[in-house]
Amino acid sequence: MTQIAPPTVKFSPQVDLQKFEAALAAAVQFDDVDGCPDRLADGMRYALLAPGKRLRPQLVMLAAQACGGSVDAALPAAVAVEMIHAYSLVHDDLPAMDDDDLRRGRPTCHKQFDEALAILVGDALQAQAFEVLATQLTPAETAVAACRELATAAGARALVGGQADDLAAEFQDLTLEQLQLIHARKTGALFRVSLKLGALVAGAAAERVQALDEYGTKLGLAFQIVDDLLDVNGTEAQLGKTPGKDARQGKSTFPELLGVEESRQRVNELIQQARDAVKLLGTAAEPLIELANYVGQRTH
Amino acid sequence: MTQIAPPTVKFSPQVDLQKFEAALAAAVQFDDVDGCPDRLADGMRYALLAPGKRLRPQLVMLAAQACGGSVDAALPAAVAVEMIHAYSLVHDDLPAMDDDDLRRGRPTCHKQFDEALAILVGDALQAQAFEVLATQLTPAETAVAACRELATAAGARALVGGQADDLAAEFQDLTLEQLQLIHARKTGALFRVSLKLGALVAGAAAERVQALDEYGTKLGLAFQIVDDLLDVNGTEAQLGKTPGKDARQGKSTFPELLGVEESRQRVNELIQQARDAVKLLGTAAEPLIELANYVGQRTH
Repeated sequence: MTQIAPPTVKFSPQVDLQKFEAALAAAVQFDDVDGCPDRLADGMRYALLAPGKRLRPQLVMLAAQACGGSVDAALPAAVAVEMIHAYSLVHDDLPAMDDDDLRRGRPTCHKQFDEALAILVGDALQAQAFEVLATQLTPAETAVAACRELATAAGARALVGGQADDLAAEFQDLTLEQLQLIHARKTGALFRVSLKLGALVAGAAAERVQALDEYGTKLGLAFQIVDDLLDVNGTEAQLGKTPGKDARQGKSTFPELLGVEESRQRVNELIQQARDAVKLLGTAAEPLIELANYVGQRTH
Repeated sequence: MTQIAPPTVKFSPQVDLQKFEAALAAAVQFDDVDGCPDRLADGMRYALLAPGKRLRPQLVMLAAQACGGSVDAALPAAVAVEMIHAYSLVHDDLPAMDDDDLRRGRPTCHKQFDEALAILVGDALQAQAFEVLATQLTPAETAVAACRELATAAGARALVGGQADDLAAEFQDLTLEQLQLIHARKTGALFRVSLKLGALVAGAAAERVQALDEYGTKLGLAFQIVDDLLDVNGTEAQLGKTPGKDARQGKSTFPELLGVEESRQRVNELIQQARDAVKLLGTAAEPLIELANYVGQRTH
């Protein structure tokens, strides 16, 4: 059985995340009289400002950069996708859903606070994502397009639809195609829209948007297969969550369908395809290639 | 003790809702290959297309009309506010939240389907509201402003914040001011943004926007006091839900704080204030006045 390679690529962000972290924190800064209850604010900060790789924000910013745009101008979009991501994790972890106690090594939001607050934290973060886009992106055409794209990616045909099918698939045997369709929506859509928003903010031509979308599609699938491989092989310390959960939930996984070796092979192929997709962007795409390498080789 | 007056104002919509209902249904029309699972689509339709008074959509359309705008142009905004409203009800009813089995005389979404699906239905409806605005409103400046306003009204400082405080207030004694602040966010914000979106679509001048906002503030509070009065006095058939729930949940109510007589008086004063607020809109505001009268006198 193929071992997961020891970490050869240390995770370092491909873009300076300092401004991003500041923007993220600012977006969930509430004052005493603005109507946001303290505990709700605490919950939103707990969910959003948790340590994380910030993959999706990086994709936004790197896409903008790769298309000759300004990383700073892309910050609101980076914040918004991370908010959608964070909200979706909070809801996914709920008892009625995946019922997880731990995430990224810490108690999940509903364990740290309570279930009602966690539901509301997720709800508020989703609204806030659109507020950030609609308040901070310019011009209006860019802001509208961003809202439209993110709403679609966050919605019933993508993120939420994927999660619904993922839950329904527990203890069912899926075909490879069905499994891919779940993950394309549950994970891939947000990866792809992250890149799309970055390209949008940069005013990129259709060709570049398409290249980045191709990259995102391949990267998203690779990411998920690696996730599945880690769930089989990883430890709680590495994963930051309880391992072997997929098996206990009876979820079909790529290793289960393809075997570990073949899954590993697929990851390598997909990462190569992701790299190839952004060739036309030239040297500006190098950070995206580094990111793809990291995804393909990550062990946690 | 003052009796609730027998129904003198039969509920009839103040605007033709046929086009609205068609637009609402169209917004949750999914096809087999678009990525939205059937059961999720069913849940969204169950939640959104349930029989209802469509108060908030009426406010959108009547505000547009009162400001000399097109009701048709306001339809996307009317659909969007009803989606936010419907989503918030689905989540409010969840076991961890208000834990209601019945709403509008039917099983709540999580009873009809299951809790996980209900969570996702709410999530998807919220995203869809922004998708509708960002896809269907023009020009871009109007669409962006609408997204911004609805996101704020749906967010941590308003709708969700109000719900968080409402839950936290169970079995606590609130002051009148605290109670009003909860309801201003939990109910009032969506009333007000409905009117604002209608005015926005009509390109209304600031003076009219302000008048409608005043109307919405008064109407929203009156609506909630009547709601409280009905919970004390209504029957399950009238209410479509289990009565006396406020008391069982230990929630402070207006009748509890002010007494039924005084509460009734306040409603009358607020409805008068709502009527006064829209005087400057002339005859165009008559349907809004009729709506206010209905709210003030409703018995179910």
